[in-house]
Parts: sequence; structure tokens; C-alpha cells
Amino acid sequence: MRRLPWYLAYLKSLQAQKDAPAYVSSTRVAQAVGVAPSQIAKDLSMINIAGRTRIGYHLDELVAGISDFLGFDDEHRAVVIGAGSLGRALMADNGLTRFGLKIVAGFDSDPAIVGTDVAGIPVYDVERLAEVCQQIGDVRVATVTVPATAAQAVADAVVAASIPAIWNFTPGRIVVPDGTVVQDTSIYSHLAVMYNRIKYAGLTPLARKLL
Amino acid sequence: MRRLPWYLAYLKSLQAQKDAPAYVSSTRVAQAVGVAPSQIAKDLSMINIAGRTRIGYHLDELVAGISDFLGFDDEHRAVVIGAGSLGRALMADNGLTRFGLKIVAGFDSDPAIVGTDVAGIPVYDVERLAEVCQQIGDVRVATVTVPATAAQAVADAVVAASIPAIWNFTPGRIVVPDGTVVQDTSIYSHLAVMYNRIKYAGLTPLARKLL
Repeated sequence: MRRLPWYLAYLKSLQAQKDAPAYVSSTRVAQAVGVAPSQIAKDLSMINIAGRTRIGYHLDELVAGISDFLGFDDEHRAVVIGAGSLGRALMADNGLTRFGLKIVAGFDSDPAIVGTDVAGIPVYDVERLAEVCQQIGDVRVATVTVPATAAQAVADAVVAASIPAIWNFTPGRIVVPDGTVVQDTSIYSHLAVMYNRIKYAGLTPLARKLL
Repeated sequence: MRRLPWYLAYLKSLQAQKDAPAYVSSTRVAQAVGVAPSQIAKDLSMINIAGRTRIGYHLDELVAGISDFLGFDDEHRAVVIGAGSLGRALMADNGLTRFGLKIVAGFDSDPAIVGTDVAGIPVYDVERLAEVCQQIGDVRVATVTVPATAAQAVADAVVAASIPAIWNFTPGRIVVPDGTVVQDTSIYSHLAVMYNRIKYAGLTPLARKLL
């Protein structure tokens, strides 16, 4: 699951070349992404994609197969709660659409922001979350980009609005009833992991182990 | 490492309350973040923070201790490469400063963007990466927010500029020599994981296992 997007990114870059090959070998992908060829063949067979001996994988079929498995070809309707700098960037990012996420509305509590729009997407009062989502219909993801202190209250409102998944960008922990999906993408938590690795990057693997 | 930012976010929200307590018990933190109290005590003892029997942890000391361990109190100078919507959002996000990341410059290859500034931070031609970083001095993190197809070339330039860490927001895999830290925060990869979990969220744990 972690490696498939790597393969897909490389394969799409191959497709974009003007002399794009029709077939690609696992060895070639392996070299580009730094994963063993046998691992790549294993990962692809897990999602029922097989290559041909000595020829490799059909490039276009491979891209379509991985993209379909990852859900990037479906349309997942989403809202953004918290139209601050990160929330607005996500609303304006057309990259998300290419990866199957269609942001249809934004929400905020700031009267100065409510009623405006970001990249053509309207921003509503967060009090109207359930009502607006019901009008839109089939909203599957609530992207949460509020301050960490407000994250749990927003999550409760998302659950009350019957939205099945929360994409949590705050560093706060969100507790939800069983059945609601929470995907944490805490940018700040990743920072801490990175700082720690920078601190010890100069050490040998043995020294790191001994710490 | 994953849980400490959760504790910190909750503890800071406690500090921000007007009747903030002087001491906090692991039971109280446990309830708020949904982690067992014994796990919290264990995590905190790992970073040499001990509570007092029946009294708990001194709130301000606890916040300072976790924040220091996570590296949020240090200043890590950083540059952003790729001043598109995500890159610009990161440059404008003052939240990063509070978590120890100080963005001092942006880089892009688009002549329309080079020479402008974002939230007071200048954007330079990416060709000048090594030169500008040497002038600034002590740049520790290169935040990479370019299209996936350009990620490896940018990473090579970062390594050549002697910047010790790459914060990779692209879905592409970056291969670097030993000694350079790569922290992946691929928003799009997290999307795939979330889609997969939404798909199977309605199933019982047993049914999920049988799939």
C-alpha cells in the first residue's frame, strides 16, 4: 500500500515521456524506486497484475490497474473543515482531483471567510455542516484542517453528519465510534520524526542501535 | 513518537483553558486521546519524564519536556522547493514555526513566480539552490513540493547543496545516498490508504480478515 503509489508515480512519469515504452520490466521500476524487483513482482501479483516473461508489464494496463486498486479512478466527494492556509491549499489543489478526491464544499467558523469561495468552491458556516452535506449528497470524506484544540468537536460534528471518513491533518488525536474511518496525516508529527532522524543521521547504524 | 504529538496537542489545549490545572494525571490524558494510562506512563518514562504518585505530571513541565524531546523548541531552517499551491501554503503556515520549522526561502523554476515572495519569504530560481542556501547558512531541511516526476532531480540538487534532510510531499520515491534523511509525507498515498479503509469499513473485523 505504501509502495504502490511510488510505482504509480514512476510509471506515470514514463508514460509522459515522448518515447514511452509499451512494456516495462520490474527491474526497470526497481532501479527507479529503489525496491527489489522480486518485491515489485510480489506487490503486483497481490493486486492480480502479472507480467509476461522476458517482456514485462504492459505500461498502460499497469498504470490503470494500480490506479484502480488505489481508488484514484473513483470520485470521492469531500468537504474541507477549516479554511485556513492549509485548508485553502487543499481546496485549490487540482492534484487531489487526479487522485480521486473531489472537494465540493468548505466550512469555517470565521464570519469573514463564510460566504466567500476558494478556487470556485463555496465556504459555508460550520454550523451548517450536516444540512449542506445532506443537500450535496454522498459526501464520503471530511478533511479536518482546524487547530488541534478544535479537532475533537469537529470530529463529533462529522460523525453526527453521517460522513463515513475523517482525513485528520491536525496533530490531535480524534476519537470516533467504530465504523468511522480516521486517516491521520499529521504534518507536525512527521516533523518530529524527521528532527529525530536528522539528530542521529550522522551516527553509524551500530551507534544508533546502542542509543 | 506517533503518540507524543497527540499528548502534546491535548496538553497544550489544557494549558490554553482559563482554569488550567497545575497537574494532570495520565488517566485524564488517556481519556482525552484514547490511549491506555499505562501506555502513556511508559511513553513518558521513555523520554525521562516521571509523574508523582497521586498528583500526576506538572502540566507546564510536561509540555516543555515533550516539546523539547520532539525538537519543536529548536529552530530548524528550511527551504521550500516548488512554490505551487501546497508549497505556498506551507510557506504561509505560521503553525510550522511553532513546531520548530523556520522556512527562510522558496525555490521554483517558473519565471512568473521567481522573484516574488510568499508571506514575506522570497522565491528564488531553483538553479540557485546551492548558492542561496550557502549564503543563508545552516539550512537543515528541504521541503519538496514539486510534481512527482521532478522529485528525484530536485532531491539530487538538494544532496549536491549539502542539505541534510528532505521532507518529501510528492508520491514519488526519492533515492538518496546514505546519510541524507528522507521523510515521506505523501498526501496522495494517504488518500489511497483511506479509500481502502472506507471500502471495507462496513465489514466486520472477521470479514475483513477473510478478504
